[in-house]
Amino acid sequence: MSAPIDVDHQIAVARRGADDLIVEAELRDKLARSAKSGKPLRIKLGLDPTAPDIHLGHTVVLNKMRQLQDLGHQVIFLIGDFTSMIGDPSGRNATRPPLTREAIRANALTYHAQASKVLDPERTEIRYNSEWCEPLGAAGMIRLASQYTVARMLERDDFSKRYAGHQPIAVHEFLYPLMQGYDSVALRADIELGGTDQKFNLLVGRELQKSAGQEPQCVITMPLLVGLDGVEKMSKSKGNYVGITEAPGEMFGKLMSISDELMWRYFELLSFRPMAEIAKLRRDCAAGANPRDAKVALAQEVVARFHSPADAEQALATFEARFRGGAMPESMPELTIESAGAGIAIANLAKQAGVVASTSEALRLIDGRGLKLDGEVVADKHATVAAGSTVVVQAGKRRFARVSVR
Amino acid sequence: MSAPIDVDHQIAVARRGADDLIVEAELRDKLARSAKSGKPLRIKLGLDPTAPDIHLGHTVVLNKMRQLQDLGHQVIFLIGDFTSMIGDPSGRNATRPPLTREAIRANALTYHAQASKVLDPERTEIRYNSEWCEPLGAAGMIRLASQYTVARMLERDDFSKRYAGHQPIAVHEFLYPLMQGYDSVALRADIELGGTDQKFNLLVGRELQKSAGQEPQCVITMPLLVGLDGVEKMSKSKGNYVGITEAPGEMFGKLMSISDELMWRYFELLSFRPMAEIAKLRRDCAAGANPRDAKVALAQEVVARFHSPADAEQALATFEARFRGGAMPESMPELTIESAGAGIAIANLAKQAGVVASTSEALRLIDGRGLKLDGEVVADKHATVAAGSTVVVQAGKRRFARVSVR
Repeated sequence: MSAPIDVDHQIAVARRGADDLIVEAELRDKLARSAKSGKPLRIKLGLDPTAPDIHLGHTVVLNKMRQLQDLGHQVIFLIGDFTSMIGDPSGRNATRPPLTREAIRANALTYHAQASKVLDPERTEIRYNSEWCEPLGAAGMIRLASQYTVARMLERDDFSKRYAGHQPIAVHEFLYPLMQGYDSVALRADIELGGTDQKFNLLVGRELQKSAGQEPQCVITMPLLVGLDGVEKMSKSKGNYVGITEAPGEMFGKLMSISDELMWRYFELLSFRPMAEIAKLRRDCAAGANPRDAKVALAQEVVARFHSPADAEQALATFEARFRGGAMPESMPELTIESAGAGIAIANLAKQAGVVASTSEALRLIDGRGLKLDGEVVADKHATVAAGSTVVVQAGKRRFARVSVR
Repeated sequence: MSAPIDVDHQIAVARRGADDLIVEAELRDKLARSAKSGKPLRIKLGLDPTAPDIHLGHTVVLNKMRQLQDLGHQVIFLIGDFTSMIGDPSGRNATRPPLTREAIRANALTYHAQASKVLDPERTEIRYNSEWCEPLGAAGMIRLASQYTVARMLERDDFSKRYAGHQPIAVHEFLYPLMQGYDSVALRADIELGGTDQKFNLLVGRELQKSAGQEPQCVITMPLLVGLDGVEKMSKSKGNYVGITEAPGEMFGKLMSISDELMWRYFELLSFRPMAEIAKLRRDCAAGANPRDAKVALAQEVVARFHSPADAEQALATFEARFRGGAMPESMPELTIESAGAGIAIANLAKQAGVVASTSEALRLIDGRGLKLDGEVVADKHATVAAGSTVVVQAGKRRFARVSVR
């Protein structure tokens, strides 16, 4: 533990961006005791070891873990290897085959390596729940199942919807929240973090800890991060994500593309700047400062975290060079041009994109250094754009179009 | 296997007195194959090892087992020791403490000894389900639970009532039918027997066997035996039962007290006489034969089974001696006389019971050997009846009363 830290401050850190904190009074007690004894709180994050490839959406809880770690507390990655080794026992879900112990360890280490861009790996404990789930045995599982009623289980949002909608719920699905709760008992967790969709399961942990004579954990739920489109939750399948292993330029460009409104939410959930500083930035923008500068600061912070400060500088420089000579408009016409896979000459593309009236206008502009592709001046009249690429074509200062060539 | 036995006959034996036989066509197949191969069918009866003291109600399924055993099939007593060792894990039921392995074995052997009055002990296999439940482990329990849906579980009669009535159902209660079904998988049972209230659980066994690639067991459910009162199911707590360790005279007397209508049901469920013979007895009674003779035959058969033929003869002789001089009426006035714990003189009792008009009439009857207690002539005018006893007092040939003295 570092020097005694104000409990109010710690509560504010815990609450930042969170959907829910249950129960604040209990957390105050825990924090005060921890400050007094110098004994860090134990903060649990349960992880599914099947999908080690993480994006910024996944880092929202990791960021909260880091913030609590920076307050001196002990972070525990809890790898749910036990149920992963079972796979989907109903056999209905072919995408959830049982994993071997080796595959799980490898995934967990990959996850840990990726998450170490956010967390301090030296102060992160990794645990596997097979450690206490295997010794449970069939009898222990029955005892565990005796601690919760069917009616309370059916209160879980997705269960109640499926039950009402006559969608099957297999009995073993009732065992999973109990095992997750039992993990908290085994770890003697003080706090459990999770997505907002995990709230029910995290509360089961509180119940089981009480039954086991332990002080119940506090629960912090974090919202799902909205994707780059500002509409749907960030997910790989929606294509609205930023993977944390993406190249600096990609990452920077994607973050520069979000709306100003979404930017403030991202600041809250993805930045480590103090909220007071973010509030000031926001006030400055409201008073006329360019939001683009705030966005650059955010994008640089994120790129620096997952790559390096130098990479962040370079990404900014490249980005600015590309759009030198004029700010990129917030929106522009988008269209697809068919080239039958052969690519297309630049003058023809400019005409079809509607930024020039004719190919001869395009050729004149090229002569006068007035036609740009992705922010860079086109010098070669015979230049072509390959099929499969997407480019921004710009004629003069104000005519833009984003063109996909097929 | 004895000589090939007609499948139709075996089906008739299986159906005798049964509530349900699921599925007859499948059972025909199994029986035909068994007759051909000489390989007996495996017939499972699950037993709770907590209550080894059995009454005639419990013997209804045992009788069916014996009938199937006599056809050459293999009977298996399945002792549910695994869950008994857990007890009631919810801790709500103080009457279900965990049993030790030793206590369970002792109970099972007591049960086996008692049941051996009905079954051929040499051809009865005893198994304990801890044999396969312990190796299941927590993972096996999860896999088991994955094979059934919550909705189907809630179709079980008592679950649906409790759920609808907002009575708690603990999650582990959903695991018990699955474990019972898994017992059938482990035993490769061909037939499972049970009380009619067990039907749901027995059908779960069919499902799990199918999932495990086995031919599903057939299910025979037997009705609950109505008690001596002809109204409620036989149970110790209702006092309307005949314990199989009761003395021959007690057993005989209790069976003689049942109504003629109930007698035919008892013949079907408790006698090993062929149904054709029972049908003939019934026709004879309808044609004027005394039902009392049929009742004597039934009572003697049952006493002989749990004691000996000699005991049965003796019980009949004692019973007849007691009621020599006049058949006991089917019903008579019943009343309670307060003696403040001190007992009561016989003449006074006869008067209060209304079988004589006065104590002097009672005394005259005693002189003339015309007053009887429990079928025996009262010789002593000063005889008293102790508090706490119930006696039948008889004045002359036709005046009876059953009197409880308090």
